[in-house]
Amino acid sequence: MRIEELDTPVLTVDLDIMERNLRSLGEYCQTHGLKLRPHTKTHKIPAIAKMQMASGAAGVTVAKVGEAEVMTSAGLDNILIAYPVLGRAKCERLAKLAQHNIIAVSLDSLEVAQGISEAATRSGSKVDLLVEFDVGMRRCGLQSVDAWVRLAQAVDQLSSVRFSGLMFYPGHIWDALSEQSPALENLSQIIEEIQSKAKHSGLNCGVVTGGSTPTAYNSHRVRGLTEIRPGTYVFNDMNETKAGFSQLSDCALKVQVTVVSNAVQGRAMIDGGSKTFSGDRLISGDKQGFGFVTEHPSVLFAAMSEEHGHLDLGASDRVGVGERLSIIPNHVCACVNMHNQIYYHRNGVVEGSWTVEGRGKLQ
Amino acid sequence: MRIEELDTPVLTVDLDIMERNLRSLGEYCQTHGLKLRPHTKTHKIPAIAKMQMASGAAGVTVAKVGEAEVMTSAGLDNILIAYPVLGRAKCERLAKLAQHNIIAVSLDSLEVAQGISEAATRSGSKVDLLVEFDVGMRRCGLQSVDAWVRLAQAVDQLSSVRFSGLMFYPGHIWDALSEQSPALENLSQIIEEIQSKAKHSGLNCGVVTGGSTPTAYNSHRVRGLTEIRPGTYVFNDMNETKAGFSQLSDCALKVQVTVVSNAVQGRAMIDGGSKTFSGDRLISGDKQGFGFVTEHPSVLFAAMSEEHGHLDLGASDRVGVGERLSIIPNHVCACVNMHNQIYYHRNGVVEGSWTVEGRGKLQ
Repeated sequence: MRIEELDTPVLTVDLDIMERNLRSLGEYCQTHGLKLRPHTKTHKIPAIAKMQMASGAAGVTVAKVGEAEVMTSAGLDNILIAYPVLGRAKCERLAKLAQHNIIAVSLDSLEVAQGISEAATRSGSKVDLLVEFDVGMRRCGLQSVDAWVRLAQAVDQLSSVRFSGLMFYPGHIWDALSEQSPALENLSQIIEEIQSKAKHSGLNCGVVTGGSTPTAYNSHRVRGLTEIRPGTYVFNDMNETKAGFSQLSDCALKVQVTVVSNAVQGRAMIDGGSKTFSGDRLISGDKQGFGFVTEHPSVLFAAMSEEHGHLDLGASDRVGVGERLSIIPNHVCACVNMHNQIYYHRNGVVEGSWTVEGRGKLQ
Repeated sequence: MRIEELDTPVLTVDLDIMERNLRSLGEYCQTHGLKLRPHTKTHKIPAIAKMQMASGAAGVTVAKVGEAEVMTSAGLDNILIAYPVLGRAKCERLAKLAQHNIIAVSLDSLEVAQGISEAATRSGSKVDLLVEFDVGMRRCGLQSVDAWVRLAQAVDQLSSVRFSGLMFYPGHIWDALSEQSPALENLSQIIEEIQSKAKHSGLNCGVVTGGSTPTAYNSHRVRGLTEIRPGTYVFNDMNETKAGFSQLSDCALKVQVTVVSNAVQGRAMIDGGSKTFSGDRLISGDKQGFGFVTEHPSVLFAAMSEEHGHLDLGASDRVGVGERLSIIPNHVCACVNMHNQIYYHRNGVVEGSWTVEGRGKLQ
């Protein structure tokens, strides 16, 4: 079957492109002695996580205990839950996972560490804990090195957990391509200061995990970094492409849609809106549009309803009812999360489909 | 079990509020002789659709064939698919549904009508067709009355379908509360002109279906309207509330979340972001924030990552790690679509849960 025969709207992944993306970053990390721990939030599919492991990943990252359960059920191990796991129910599930798997959790409060420690003690398991530092995103993480060291020391005293290092998320850094990236230099200085004070305090901060897709190929410029956690690089999307971190030809995932109406002057409606693409706006480049229409580069994907994509046609564009289009989404992680299934293909020939097994595992 | 014992993030619905919302609009429609055909995209749950039927609805609306299949499988009948159904696979499924159910479809092109007619002929069923007119939203619908009449006449000639009337969607109208709403008056004039020309052309335009939640309680001011299709009214949300169409006390659905971090000065992170709430921004009122934090009205839900909600605390706000909050989402239809389950309660006592059966039925 060819992708043109799949009913729309539907997600398709070009395996050749995806495999090239995986291989490329795997080789980069090997060259620079960096561990690669991809964030699987982008796809939530164990089969892809296994392909990432085969391409050199040392383990995977997830956001939720439920996602970790999906991954371990499929046979994956060595999982970082890059999220403060809180509350008795979640901690019990976490501790249970840690009985048979290597599980790490990031946190920035003693409350979270204590809850995990208590559950792990009850279940007789051991959980690795990373203490998060805020490198400028203002989301999670301690904001002073002294506070970071104090929490790391307190974590180090708890039973049934192992303090294992520093975690940060540089999600605000989009200047990594510049030769003099002040943000990357700032990261290096933070890591050096933390490592120095940690050593002075008798802490063994063996893991320093950071990294996103926009910083991925410049991670070697961050002194002291041991591991990166990019997610989007597996598929890429318009946010990455408009920012210069990928090319259109690196975008492995497309949304296949059909034009269902062109009755309104200057417009065409496709059979996917915010419940197909997600409502995420473009956050890089000209910040215009909700996706790139590969067949009609001059068409602006101008607006979305829940089930309609509103295309604004230029003066010369002609789009007929029934025409199929393939669109690269703005934010592929959010787009995948709307779907239960993704079809994969080579040169347009469908080879199979994956279930998005981690979707909706919010707890 | 009380809702405070449910693990977070999780959606909860207050049955008393929801039942009051259903009863209130049911009574309004009965008073004014309007048919009520709620759009079930808001909840995608057959059990709620049945409650809407019990509160006076004449049938239901869905957006996709897959959603219609979910509803008919659960025993619902008389379904409008308010969407141009296109392509052989979908038309076959549609025609099959129409063998045992009353099914209507809206469209604005002959291509769509022909595909449905052919599939219905093959399966020996009959489908009702509504021709859509664009009343100003510039999404779907013919834009001139003459073009509308021509398409209606062509539809009327096709086999195995019944032309049954006019459909429009006034999703752009937010001034329905004003005594002199030019937009409502404009609707009346469009309907009158269409009815007049339809009659002149020998068309029986028996159904005139419009209506949204923002226009719902002013539908009696639209001359010639026979039916409305509001969706959001079942739960309400911040978009409706900030625009004055509902009160906070009419909002039946809340997102129960937990504070997982407050390490960053002036901020607190909750365990739900765009994959819990949807990324939909507020489109009414001050257009600020991603949801209303009922316990801390002065806290601004300022930003979202996929799994983090970023709360900006005012000078006097104190929010501890582990604190539970209940948040009214901006756009409840998009929020529900992120979840597999909704718990319902009375006065905080959980009575059960519904599966969001229509979620992900995009085709």
